[in-house]
Amino acid sequence: MRAEDGAELVQSRPIARVVGGRAEVCEGGWGREEAVIRLDGSMFGPEALFGLEGFSHLEVVFFFDQVDSQEIDSGARPVPGRDDGALVGIFAQRSRRRPNRLGVSRCQITSVDGLDVHVSGLDAVAGTPVLDLKPYVREFGPRGEIRQPEWASALMHDYY
Amino acid sequence: MRAEDGAELVQSRPIARVVGGRAEVCEGGWGREEAVIRLDGSMFGPEALFGLEGFSHLEVVFFFDQVDSQEIDSGARPVPGRDDGALVGIFAQRSRRRPNRLGVSRCQITSVDGLDVHVSGLDAVAGTPVLDLKPYVREFGPRGEIRQPEWASALMHDYY
Repeated sequence: MRAEDGAELVQSRPIARVVGGRAEVCEGGWGREEAVIRLDGSMFGPEALFGLEGFSHLEVVFFFDQVDSQEIDSGARPVPGRDDGALVGIFAQRSRRRPNRLGVSRCQITSVDGLDVHVSGLDAVAGTPVLDLKPYVREFGPRGEIRQPEWASALMHDYY
Repeated sequence: MRAEDGAELVQSRPIARVVGGRAEVCEGGWGREEAVIRLDGSMFGPEALFGLEGFSHLEVVFFFDQVDSQEIDSGARPVPGRDDGALVGIFAQRSRRRPNRLGVSRCQITSVDGLDVHVSGLDAVAGTPVLDLKPYVREFGPRGEIRQPEWASALMHDYY
């Protein structure tokens, strides 16, 4: 697939949907949400999830389908909570209004049942198309000391 | 966009490419690799990266473009290193031969220079199309105790 200007495009087909959980996008308290990630039974059987219950956490790649393409930000905006003119670029924040509208989140696996993965703490609303599921493997986490600006920590205060 | 059977498809346009680093896919020692993630200058200006140097780590969503669509596994395979018939599903492993061929990795940010993010420890080869960049924010990491099967830890022994 190519765009009008010849750029190569990547096409993904949702492998699953979020079922249950929060119906509308609103910030905060995501840690208490329970939901199901249901595999598309026309493409996958239960064997695609074999062994997943051996992991405590799941990494979920999803599509922010409720963000309109007109809302996408590809530049910079003021740093949250500051009014000194400092700017933060779209790739230095995790706003959902981002090019390609891809989300990546970690959540806890409660149980696996057939095509259903029961999870808690997933910050995606009901109906969200899921593009990939990966087990969270400790060694794939960040290596070395983690450093982040104060505004990022402040923003996360009530998120989960 | 829709597939032939009517399923909704998600289209992404690479926002960047991996420049330098390892030229060929081979496992092990990724932690020592240095590379550049170069934003597509036809879509973005340097402001899209403003503030990124305040973070130590980057989360990179990329497309395994060297995996042929024929190679994709959507079922299960024997658990690595075991011959007792135990199976592990494609969504319980991080193999690149996965539906949608999406990779998600963490790496360290060395510096940001115009449209270039210099990184170390990225497990993606030169030329890899990058679909998203997100700053690694501690609070978005896994919450609670992390548990994973022994085979996953063993597999990671020489990876980074």
